Amino acid sequence: MAMDPLDAAMKKCGADAFVHYATGEEADMRYLTRFVMHDPFVFFKRRRQPGTIIVPQMEAERASRESTTSVMTRTQAGLPDIVKKEKDPWKAAAKMIAGQAGKNLLVSPALPAALLRALEEHGHVIVDNGTVERVRAIKSPGEIRLMQAVQKKTERAMALGISLISHATVKKGILYHNGAPLTSELVRIAMHKQLMDEGCRAVETIISCGEDTAFPHIIGSGALKPHEPIVIDMFPRDEASGYYADMTRTVSKGKPSQKITEMYEAVKEAQQIGIATIKAGVSGADVHNAVVDYFKSRGYESDTRGFIHNLGHGVGLQVHELPTVGPAGGALEAGSVVTVEPGLYYPGVGGIRLEDMGAVRARQFAGFTQFEETLIV
Amino acid sequence: MAMDPLDAAMKKCGADAFVHYATGEEADMRYLTRFVMHDPFVFFKRRRQPGTIIVPQMEAERASRESTTSVMTRTQAGLPDIVKKEKDPWKAAAKMIAGQAGKNLLVSPALPAALLRALEEHGHVIVDNGTVERVRAIKSPGEIRLMQAVQKKTERAMALGISLISHATVKKGILYHNGAPLTSELVRIAMHKQLMDEGCRAVETIISCGEDTAFPHIIGSGALKPHEPIVIDMFPRDEASGYYADMTRTVSKGKPSQKITEMYEAVKEAQQIGIATIKAGVSGADVHNAVVDYFKSRGYESDTRGFIHNLGHGVGLQVHELPTVGPAGGALEAGSVVTVEPGLYYPGVGGIRLEDMGAVRARQFAGFTQFEETLIV
Repeated sequence: MAMDPLDAAMKKCGADAFVHYATGEEADMRYLTRFVMHDPFVFFKRRRQPGTIIVPQMEAERASRESTTSVMTRTQAGLPDIVKKEKDPWKAAAKMIAGQAGKNLLVSPALPAALLRALEEHGHVIVDNGTVERVRAIKSPGEIRLMQAVQKKTERAMALGISLISHATVKKGILYHNGAPLTSELVRIAMHKQLMDEGCRAVETIISCGEDTAFPHIIGSGALKPHEPIVIDMFPRDEASGYYADMTRTVSKGKPSQKITEMYEAVKEAQQIGIATIKAGVSGADVHNAVVDYFKSRGYESDTRGFIHNLGHGVGLQVHELPTVGPAGGALEAGSVVTVEPGLYYPGVGGIRLEDMGAVRARQFAGFTQFEETLIV
Repeated sequence: MAMDPLDAAMKKCGADAFVHYATGEEADMRYLTRFVMHDPFVFFKRRRQPGTIIVPQMEAERASRESTTSVMTRTQAGLPDIVKKEKDPWKAAAKMIAGQAGKNLLVSPALPAALLRALEEHGHVIVDNGTVERVRAIKSPGEIRLMQAVQKKTERAMALGISLISHATVKKGILYHNGAPLTSELVRIAMHKQLMDEGCRAVETIISCGEDTAFPHIIGSGALKPHEPIVIDMFPRDEASGYYADMTRTVSKGKPSQKITEMYEAVKEAQQIGIATIKAGVSGADVHNAVVDYFKSRGYESDTRGFIHNLGHGVGLQVHELPTVGPAGGALEAGSVVTVEPGLYYPGVGGIRLEDMGAVRARQFAGFTQFEETLIV
């Protein structure tokens, strides 16, 4: 990343260095280093200097090739001598960090509390208020291209899932595929395998049907049914880049109830209203409220039922990140990538959700999602 | 979990409650709640009371069904009123937590630094020194059964991977399968797909070959070669239970160099020595050193080459957890599940690693791994 915002944050509080400690799966760490390691490691950056990571000897070779930072081994950072006297691993890590980075530190908000306490024994420690997270929220053209690529793969998996449903046969109120009941699990695994072939990892893709669709985060199980809403919500991560896509479609094999059809049309229209409202400078709250107002005008009031979640969220190295597109959302900035995902949920009736993803631009929302929205398949 | 150790830790420091904040993927949180949510949520437990989680309204229904704790919505915990005045999300969360759990808190070592600072504005906050992690390290019979089941699935995937290699044809120094080069990627994806069918998620399985095997964490890419060591190191997680297995085999399609063959025999013997040394009460350091000594006796000295990592580690809801089976390891306890994974690594020659997993018992190591160890396939 461009390190200027971190330098500015350090200068403001008089810190010698910025420190983070996490696995390479954690979004800030991945952004700062582009290095993935499954055990936590140290990142530090002194003012006006490039970043450095401290890794075990056995990771040093790979880190030198893959990380965008300088690389130091724990041995080079003095850990073997430190652990001879200091048996508490947090205190040992803090002593190593203080020796390399300095005593007065700005630390990541996600730094483990135990390491914060240990670092406090060496000097003054200030917790950063989210500098890296805010920088991450504005994507470079390169990041946008990576995310568009994940979105394309996601749409191909969605096409596979919907095709399994649309080509299913119906027998005694259940969908069948190749003579066996077509289940949520089967559709999910087929989609995940295709994503795996494309270098993406998807987990807990929602394939919910009927009553379950009224609860937005029930992932769904068992045989799928005709004439019922089927919500497919997926958020695959590209293994190589670490970027996510996020996408939802709702379909029905055969005509669903009138109520569901009307809800679908309202959600589809609400999504267009959300999309039309988005541009740089408009607040996430205003975008969200435009959809709330529209739903209200159509008679869909929201309390514990109806439209019960935020309209959208930022996407990047986390599936949920800044900015907020909901009641607490501030002004959107050009370069953010957000979802627009209105939904309506009524226990006993069912749920509908439609989710696209795209970039906030100066004058509009530049959608990445090109997948059609059709209820009956 | 049995909450007594947390109650004791709270009593010792006079805390009103224990607090954790993480996603359900984080091992302590999963252990405390058995609830998986991809955004972070709050767990708190007052002394001598059961645990409670605070989740968004839209997760409440699922949480009530899936969590082992009581469930409270953010609305029930007063968040909507708090955020009217408090715009900083960490400060708002802290106010909500202080209102429900109390002001003097014992918090998880993994609690984000930003939340720790915000909680300090309400009362005295002590960072726990790893109570939950230590409880996790001793597995119940039920956990052992879950881990044995993951190990079985892991071995079936290993069998598939090795079978692809052993059935490959050789042409111009490269392995072929169905007329195409047999690559690390192809073997990895085939194994991951089979694991997916069995409800497991595997990531970054190492399939490294030749020179790459000298670096234990290079995951490997490109065409596999005959007469070279191929290291297969996998650590799948069962999606339903969250438990990991961890397993490594090294194979060669056709006879490798004499040096590699000798290293293989030394590593195999080292593993047996490690296994024979393990029982409750013996320190992880002694087990590790028994292997170091054996390697030395065979002429394999270790510095930045040779045996360059710990002999093993605990496995459970994390792939690497307590106890340590390495120079810093204390006394092993009955019920821990650990790996025994000696390895030798020489750049320019190659690397060998063999890894089994099993439970520490009063008198021996009860291995879960039943997969043969054969170099030439």
